[in-house]
Amino acid sequence: MKYIIGIDIGGTKTSVSLGNTQGKILARQAFPTKDVRSTLAQTKRIIHGYLGKPKTQNRRILGIGISCAGPLDLTKGVLIKSPNMPTWRNVALNKVFSKAFRLPVVIDNDANAAALAEKTFGAGKAVKNLFYYTVSTGIGGGLIIDGEIYHGASFDAGEIGHSVILPAGPKCACGKRGCLEALASGTSIARVARERVKKSSLILKLAGTKQNIDATIVAQAVREGDKLAREIFQEVAFYLGLSVTNVIQVINPEMIVIGGGVSKAGPILFQPMIKTVRKLTWARPYRSCKIVRAKLKDIVGDLGAISLVLKKRQLLKRQ
Amino acid sequence: MKYIIGIDIGGTKTSVSLGNTQGKILARQAFPTKDVRSTLAQTKRIIHGYLGKPKTQNRRILGIGISCAGPLDLTKGVLIKSPNMPTWRNVALNKVFSKAFRLPVVIDNDANAAALAEKTFGAGKAVKNLFYYTVSTGIGGGLIIDGEIYHGASFDAGEIGHSVILPAGPKCACGKRGCLEALASGTSIARVARERVKKSSLILKLAGTKQNIDATIVAQAVREGDKLAREIFQEVAFYLGLSVTNVIQVINPEMIVIGGGVSKAGPILFQPMIKTVRKLTWARPYRSCKIVRAKLKDIVGDLGAISLVLKKRQLLKRQ
Repeated sequence: MKYIIGIDIGGTKTSVSLGNTQGKILARQAFPTKDVRSTLAQTKRIIHGYLGKPKTQNRRILGIGISCAGPLDLTKGVLIKSPNMPTWRNVALNKVFSKAFRLPVVIDNDANAAALAEKTFGAGKAVKNLFYYTVSTGIGGGLIIDGEIYHGASFDAGEIGHSVILPAGPKCACGKRGCLEALASGTSIARVARERVKKSSLILKLAGTKQNIDATIVAQAVREGDKLAREIFQEVAFYLGLSVTNVIQVINPEMIVIGGGVSKAGPILFQPMIKTVRKLTWARPYRSCKIVRAKLKDIVGDLGAISLVLKKRQLLKRQ
Repeated sequence: MKYIIGIDIGGTKTSVSLGNTQGKILARQAFPTKDVRSTLAQTKRIIHGYLGKPKTQNRRILGIGISCAGPLDLTKGVLIKSPNMPTWRNVALNKVFSKAFRLPVVIDNDANAAALAEKTFGAGKAVKNLFYYTVSTGIGGGLIIDGEIYHGASFDAGEIGHSVILPAGPKCACGKRGCLEALASGTSIARVARERVKKSSLILKLAGTKQNIDATIVAQAVREGDKLAREIFQEVAFYLGLSVTNVIQVINPEMIVIGGGVSKAGPILFQPMIKTVRKLTWARPYRSCKIVRAKLKDIVGDLGAISLVLKKRQLLKRQ
């Protein structure tokens, strides 16, 4: 049996896992992401631990996959910067880990890696072309074409969160206005709820204070029958549905997979979203596209990192 | 030297051309598109004429390419229906021509074929990934990935004209509301001009009557300093720019090529459109994408049909 090491560097936590080629995670350790030096040092210590065991020593490891947020230079394997980790700038992740462990290292952004994970081990196993959304604090996306991540001219393909839905809409964290992320992310759900909530509102009762309101609480309020919360989710579902429509009209994928924290809301999000898509999309491409919830949940980052190594090997073998 | 026959079946005219593998058109005959039977009969007569000459007899022809409007079933080579030619339904174009001439036949929709033509012989020769818009009576599109037409799950990829920009916007010919085509096509430019024009307007002066107003006249009025005409083109440029932004954010192509009759308006369309794209798109993917006018002009349909055969041969050789 061969193994793969997956590193998932997120804005709040980093996890390091040991998986097999079937996508089974055998060991996993997570810790809060801090500055570059200490985070990478702890990551290396964990990897050394995995490699110290006879069954998973160096020669049994196929490679190290790294999934991380933020714009990357994939030709050099460098993290250029990270939206949530200001001290992380021009980090040569590829070099650091290949030098330390003399193993092949493959890096990609978190949404692309998650898209590949869903294709390799999750909801998209049976298809070759899919578009993946992660709807969480922000909104990211990944485009899988012919079984591979499609990166585009500058590694920015799939940045659906910053497609513009309402040009005069609310300000987005990226500086533009009316991006999908500013209208349908967890952050925007919480912001809209805070703006509209009244003293008597169930949302406020569940949250305790305005500051405590988040997307999970708004979702809970929908389930408990709150009108405002339902309105907010219907708006979010509409914007997401509009975005899905346009992805289907332009890319005509076999499948749309929606993951991330907000997708956990389930039917209260998916039902109105799919209704919008059905209404706004041409019948033939709509019928050809399954719209499903992501399957891999909380370990999608780990499996994303692992799937990067698997795919790279597959591509090398094909040559 | 080897030759290719290109058939371009449009809503108003059909043209049949004889070209070489370098994209040079050696002969071309066009006639009004009528019912299926007479149109196909005349097409065959023209082809027989080409094949009757010693230099371009059957054995020197690589194949027949067909570019035509409307949803196709590409696995069967069947035109399902055509928006502008109601009598054209379930026409087995592939079968008709391969039987008649015992030559390989390749068929695709007009926007896809034009996208491939621009990639093979036109503005996109140097790139591998581009998105092509044709802005004309309607709006179509074609997605070229890794040098090939990307068809999607049901052959509907690239249908950018029916991406939804303004969900509560004007009714589109397709039945939906606020499609790009309903906001930025030649037809919509004429419609908006007719709605807003006043008796004293230059547009009306140039057109003679309201009914005569078309996109070309509105473009002329812009050049002659008319304020209303400029407003209309700026709106159109904004909607097109918004669409281009979202294509860049999601697909991150190396190039956007814009063709079709409305693109002939030139700088009065391109300047405000590019300004919008620059403003609404992330810097890195924007800088990585050339936005250019199509190069092939009026013979793009013929060259599209021809490029289909060339590409098919290339793919067969690679296997």
